[in-house]
Formats: sequence, C-alpha cells, structure tokens
Amino acid sequence: MNRRAKVIIVGGGFGGLCAAQALKSAPVDVTLIDRHNYHLFQPLLYQVATGSLSAGEIAAPLRSVLSREKNTRVFLVDVLDIDPLSKRVLLADGASLEYDSLIVAAGSQSSYYGHEAWREWAPSLKSVEEAINVRHKILYAFEVAERIADPAQRRAWLTFAIVGAGATGVELAGAIAEIARQTLKNDFRSIDPKEAQIILMDGAPRVLPTFPEDLAEKAKRSLLKLGVQVETGVMVKDIDKEGLTIQTHDGMNRMDARTVIWAGGVTVPALGKTLASRTHAETDKGGRIKVCPDLTIANYPDLYVVGDLAIALDPKGTPLPGVAQVAMQQGTYAAKAIVRRVQGKPKQKDFKYFDKGSLAVIGRWSAVADAFGVHMSGLPAWLVWAFIHLTYIVQFQSRILVFIQWAIQDLTFSRGARLITGTAATDFNFNKELASVAKSTEADKVTVPL
Amino acid sequence: MNRRAKVIIVGGGFGGLCAAQALKSAPVDVTLIDRHNYHLFQPLLYQVATGSLSAGEIAAPLRSVLSREKNTRVFLVDVLDIDPLSKRVLLADGASLEYDSLIVAAGSQSSYYGHEAWREWAPSLKSVEEAINVRHKILYAFEVAERIADPAQRRAWLTFAIVGAGATGVELAGAIAEIARQTLKNDFRSIDPKEAQIILMDGAPRVLPTFPEDLAEKAKRSLLKLGVQVETGVMVKDIDKEGLTIQTHDGMNRMDARTVIWAGGVTVPALGKTLASRTHAETDKGGRIKVCPDLTIANYPDLYVVGDLAIALDPKGTPLPGVAQVAMQQGTYAAKAIVRRVQGKPKQKDFKYFDKGSLAVIGRWSAVADAFGVHMSGLPAWLVWAFIHLTYIVQFQSRILVFIQWAIQDLTFSRGARLITGTAATDFNFNKELASVAKSTEADKVTVPL
Repeated sequence: MNRRAKVIIVGGGFGGLCAAQALKSAPVDVTLIDRHNYHLFQPLLYQVATGSLSAGEIAAPLRSVLSREKNTRVFLVDVLDIDPLSKRVLLADGASLEYDSLIVAAGSQSSYYGHEAWREWAPSLKSVEEAINVRHKILYAFEVAERIADPAQRRAWLTFAIVGAGATGVELAGAIAEIARQTLKNDFRSIDPKEAQIILMDGAPRVLPTFPEDLAEKAKRSLLKLGVQVETGVMVKDIDKEGLTIQTHDGMNRMDARTVIWAGGVTVPALGKTLASRTHAETDKGGRIKVCPDLTIANYPDLYVVGDLAIALDPKGTPLPGVAQVAMQQGTYAAKAIVRRVQGKPKQKDFKYFDKGSLAVIGRWSAVADAFGVHMSGLPAWLVWAFIHLTYIVQFQSRILVFIQWAIQDLTFSRGARLITGTAATDFNFNKELASVAKSTEADKVTVPL
Repeated sequence: MNRRAKVIIVGGGFGGLCAAQALKSAPVDVTLIDRHNYHLFQPLLYQVATGSLSAGEIAAPLRSVLSREKNTRVFLVDVLDIDPLSKRVLLADGASLEYDSLIVAAGSQSSYYGHEAWREWAPSLKSVEEAINVRHKILYAFEVAERIADPAQRRAWLTFAIVGAGATGVELAGAIAEIARQTLKNDFRSIDPKEAQIILMDGAPRVLPTFPEDLAEKAKRSLLKLGVQVETGVMVKDIDKEGLTIQTHDGMNRMDARTVIWAGGVTVPALGKTLASRTHAETDKGGRIKVCPDLTIANYPDLYVVGDLAIALDPKGTPLPGVAQVAMQQGTYAAKAIVRRVQGKPKQKDFKYFDKGSLAVIGRWSAVADAFGVHMSGLPAWLVWAFIHLTYIVQFQSRILVFIQWAIQDLTFSRGARLITGTAATDFNFNKELASVAKSTEADKVTVPL
C-alpha cells in the first residue's frame, strides 16, 4: 500500500503551527484546520488592546506562513466533532475528513467561572476582536470623562479595573497606566488623564502567582511606581455596567469602574469537551484533557493533544503551565512521533518540557524575567523580553515593524494604533451615555431647541 | 467685550484638520467635532482593503494630532443639526454648542444612486470598517474557491468586479491583480489564484475620467498588463448576491462575480442636506452646497463649507474636484478668513485653488501622475506618488512604518495585514456557503455520519 499517511492538525496556534512546521519534509499529507486565517502571537495581544500595535503586526496569515510546506493544505473552517473510532473530523460545512494521525491543538478560551453575564461588562483578551473591543472601551472611557462635569461619574469613567494579576493582567495594568500618565497627557482639555485610577486585583495573595516570589515582588513595586493600585486576596462577587462588587478581608465592597477587563481564568473550548467525552479521557476541573507521557489520549495512540487543551505532568507530577513554550515543544514532539511511526522507527522517549523561564513586561523598559533560573528585573529583563519576542516574530514580516513601533513609542510615549473602530457594544451606547450625563456638562448650560 | 471668538469645525478630515491647524495661534477657541477619534488618510484606504497596511498606519488620533493646539478641544460625537440663525450646533448627545464662526467639513459618503440594496453585495470604500469588510470579502473569496470543485462556481468566486474606474477603482483593481498574481501565488493547493478575473468597469468611455487622456490611456495599458479586464461604457443595472447585470452596447449581460466592490459615486451626508435646507443654499444634483467665492454660504458670512460637501467653481466656472488637495486649501483659507475678521483686518481675496496635479497608483512601482502639468507614468510617477503621500503622512508617527511596509512588500510581494477579522456579513454566511457547495468538494466524497 503506497497511500501517504494523512495527518490532521486542529488549530493554528503555537502548538498546531509548530507541528505543521515539523512535518514539512515528512512523507505525509497534512491538513491544518483553523477558524481564523491567521496565526496570532497572543502574548502581544495586550499591546493591540492598548493601542501600541495593530492586529496585523502580531498576526501572520497561516497560508503564507505555510506556503512553502507543499505537503500542507489549510482549511478555514470550524471543527464540530471528532470521531476517534472511524478516525474522522467533522467540519462545520458538513464535510468530514479522514485521518491516520490527529493532533488537537484547539487552545483555551476565557472562563468567567459560570458568570457568563460578566462577559458583557468585562471583556477578556483572547482574540483580535476582543482586543479591539478592549481598546475601544479604554479610549472611549477617556472620551466620556472629558465631557462629564460630575466628579463622581467622572471618577467612575476614569477607573480601570483589571481582574486577574497573571502576566496578561500585569502587562495590561502597566500599559493602561502608561497611557494615562504619558500617552494622553496633553490630549484632553477638561480632564487630566493622570487622574485615572488603575486597579489590578487577584484572589491570590500576590501578583504573578506562577513566577518566583522575588520577581513577583519586584513586579508589584514597578506597578506601584507606575501608579497602579494592586489589590491581592480579593474575590470578585459581581460585575455590572457600573462596576464591581468585591470581597476583601474587610467584607463586601463596591467599586465604581466603567472599564473592567477580565484577565482571569481559562477553560477549554467546546471541541475539548466533545473530544473528552468521545474518548472517555480524564480531565481536570478546567476540562483539560489528561494525556499519556507521549501526549496521546489513553487507548488512542494516533490522537495527540497539545498546548492549552492538554494537561501533561512534569517529572514531579506538577501540571505544565498553559504557555506558548509548552504548546510549541509539544506540537513539535507530536509531529516527530508521527514521522517516526510512519518511517517504522521505534517510539521516541516520553515528552519532556524544557523550561526556558517566564517573562512579564510591566512598562517602558521594565520587565521581570526568570531566564533559565536567572532572575532579572528592570531594563535587563526588558531586553531579554524584547529579544525573545522579536526572535519569534522574526519568522514573519512583522518583525521590523514591531521593533520600530516599540522604538518610536518608547522614545516618545506615543501610541499610533489608538483607533476606536468597529461596532463594539459600547459604541451604540455612547451617544445615549453622553445624553444621560449631558445635563451635567458645561456645554449644555445654554441649550436652546433648534 | 473680551470674550474670545468661538470657532466650531465639523469634521476632522483633510479640510477640518487643516482649518484647525491654521487656527493654532489665533485668539479664538476652537472645537473640532468628529464622529471618529481619528483623522483618516483616505487615499490609502484601498491599501487597507487589500491587506497592505493596517488601519492604524493610515490613521492618526485627532487628539494627538491636535494635542499642541492648546486653544482646540476635540468632541467625539455626531452632529445632528445646525441652526444658522441662533448660530448653534446640535449634538447627538442632546447638548448644543454656540459658535461665532462655523466651518462645515463633513465630507462625502458613497452613493448607490438610489439602489441602496446594492450596498449589501457591493461594499464601498469610505471608512475603516468598510475597508476591513472589503479585505474580508476578497480574502474569503479565495478561501471558498479553494474548497469548491465545480468549475463555474469556482470561477464566480474568483471573479472580482470593481464598479467605478476613478482613482480608487483603478488602484483597487491593480492591488487585487497583484494579490492574485503575486501575493497568494504559493498559498493554495487546489486553486491557482492567478485564475482570478479582475474586471474594472465604468459608464464613462475611459478610465480615470478626470485625468488627462494620455495618462488614462497609460493607466489602462498598465492595468491590462497586470491582467485586469477593463470594461468602459458599461452601465450597472443590478447587483445581487451572485453577481451583476450590466448593459453594454451589445445589450444586457449577466456576470457571475461573488466579490463586487463599489468605487462609484459619492453624495453628501445627511448633515449636508440639513444644512442646505436650513440655509436655503443652492445645491448641485449630488447635494453639494454652492458656496460664494469666499467659501461662505450666501447670506451667512460666518458659515464656511469646505471640502467634498462644498461646490466651488474655478475661474472658468468648472466645479473643483472632490479631492484632498481642494479640501486642505479650502480649510486653510476659511481659517485664515476667520482670523482676519477677528483681528479686524480687511477681507482676504477670493479662494483660488492651486492645482498641483493628480495621481493614481496602479501597482508595484507603477503609477500615472500629472504634476504641475508634467505627465509621468511608470516608476517616475510612482516615486512622485510615494514622495507626496509620505510627505503628508510625515506629520504622523505612521510615516516610517508605511514606508517600510511598502519597501518590504515591493521587494517580496508579501502583504502582512491579510487578516480576516470582525463579523462582516460574509462571515456568517461562510459555513453555510461552504455547506451548500460541499457536495462538490473532494473531501466530502466519503462523508460518514459521526
């Protein structure tokens, strides 16, 4: 039988893309399926949300990234279901595809821990659309505040609450503080953007809970220096249009904040749940699928799960974190395992994660980094961060642009991508919002009917 | 009386922005009102639509452009009405503002000549949102074609019709031809993007009707060389989901084209009609307001209309074209007239347009230019075009980025901003679209229910 083995990869994120690239010269036919036509460099999404970069600068069309992989085709469609017995993938357009080996790299999505209603008031930061929505919200808040005379309302519009103090939350808080203190400082006439309150909160006792303690402490100090208020050990009880209800050790508190951003937990996408039930795989409480040491699902030696959707354990039995590095190494591992099988070679050793460290940027020339066990902060950490991120993006055209954007921005504090576009929810309310507060504006004092 | 004169500018396009800048050191209080928070460099919008540039690269936040104009405040709101008798402007939030002098620079919007239903199938190119929608349509068309086996349907998806052969239409057609012939040439496995048919049509007997005839002829030849089919003297009778019905000298013809882009006529926005009726101003059939030689509306010496909304005549009695140059010179003129009045100086001479020429880019290193009466084409014209556009954008941060984007793209044919984002109309139909054609796809031949 001379038929080439068919490999399907679900998802074009870090895990899926690395798998496709590792299969480049293999004697297999690869189909990569994604609902978007681009690979997104998610760690920089907060820079799109805060107007530093355009979406096009942190995303690369999957087809062009894979254009030289002649054995690979890209399908732009949703995957609805996977049947591991007949070894088929069902697509949203009704078609289905057969596979010999399957790599599921479907990633994660934001979780509101059962409070889906909060999503409307506190967008998260997992997609380009959400990032543009968040940008919209942040910039509009300053616009509305500029037109409001009532001090309490103005304060509520200038209060930005970020829920979740992991890397994304810390980076967002730092960026919003810089927008308020630097970027916008000359842009308004009625308000002083520096009045803005930026509050970073988390239920954990400290920021960056997955980082070494000394770095978390340094990050906290940098945030305080930028004017960010850090509230740890705080539980969010409710989020609505006006703000949040939080529980601290003093009891319940109300916080008026018209801009709330969700940098909280993640959960698995619907396809992850479907896959777990079809394979009777064990999951953790977040729904992540427990995989064997070779990243396959037990009893399905042709079905690999990599990245955020998988829960793999390190030698000590601790689950690996949901970061790009893990997904990339797992994607490459799964691809190599498939190639060895096709070539009739013996199985490779179990997957082992090579931890290069963790990084979070806090502001202009300031970051914390744990690189191969060496702890750094301030400018040296920022340089490591910039180097690593540019090295990755280097595969794409965007590299030079991003670098120059950063150079311009860090020298001038300006942010070029500060556009309010699209029809986010807030857009429709803006005129109404202003109308409701117009009574308090100066301009209105002399209104005459036309 | 020591009160500073109040100047209101409606619109932050070329006319409004030049007016605000010309009022920088004047002893007046300026309020610039726009519905967007950014100034858009419209002549490059087609590059956003064709994935060369991100929106952030051709737009600059109005507040940051005007941050040093300390006498100017920016309002982000719609203007609903203007009362020239009480000298007030009514805003969408219910507030109203008083003025001593008013500059209306509200621009134009696309016109479907009464066929509003066509808008759904043939988006135009006047806003960032529309440009992203057009980009979405163009890229999706290739994606759908990749999955279709039926030759007639595939051809319809790979047919791109551009209605209107003015500068925007010519530039769009050239850019789409380059996408098909160069950018995407290695990206697909089932289709050859070069099969794409790009048809540029116009009712006029030639392309670029406002350009000198020799340049129009050269532009046409460049388009043909790029593989664009040019159809002049063609009337569009209907546009629907499947394509267009057109009338040529042979009679009625049907053309299957799943991507139709409207680069046709323009009309005035609602505010223009309101203003004309409130001032009893004369208008042309497109609704543009006839202004006096000093750009005011007859009987309203404090009410200036500039840019696309105004119809001003040159010394021969010909209306000035609706281009950025005219709007900019008019905006500056109106601002200076206001300053002279405030300073008690005599009126300046009537407005006179200084025509620097016209430009249209056709493709990589190819353009036609009429600069101060000198006719150029090919690379020299492209260099003039690039120089002039960069000189303008030079005011904004975007300048270096745009230049580098072009350099990369012209050397590599790649286009970095090829993202399909947002929820354009086509998005919702995509899965359904594919489902309806799935029967003809190869992948479907062996579908089994899961």
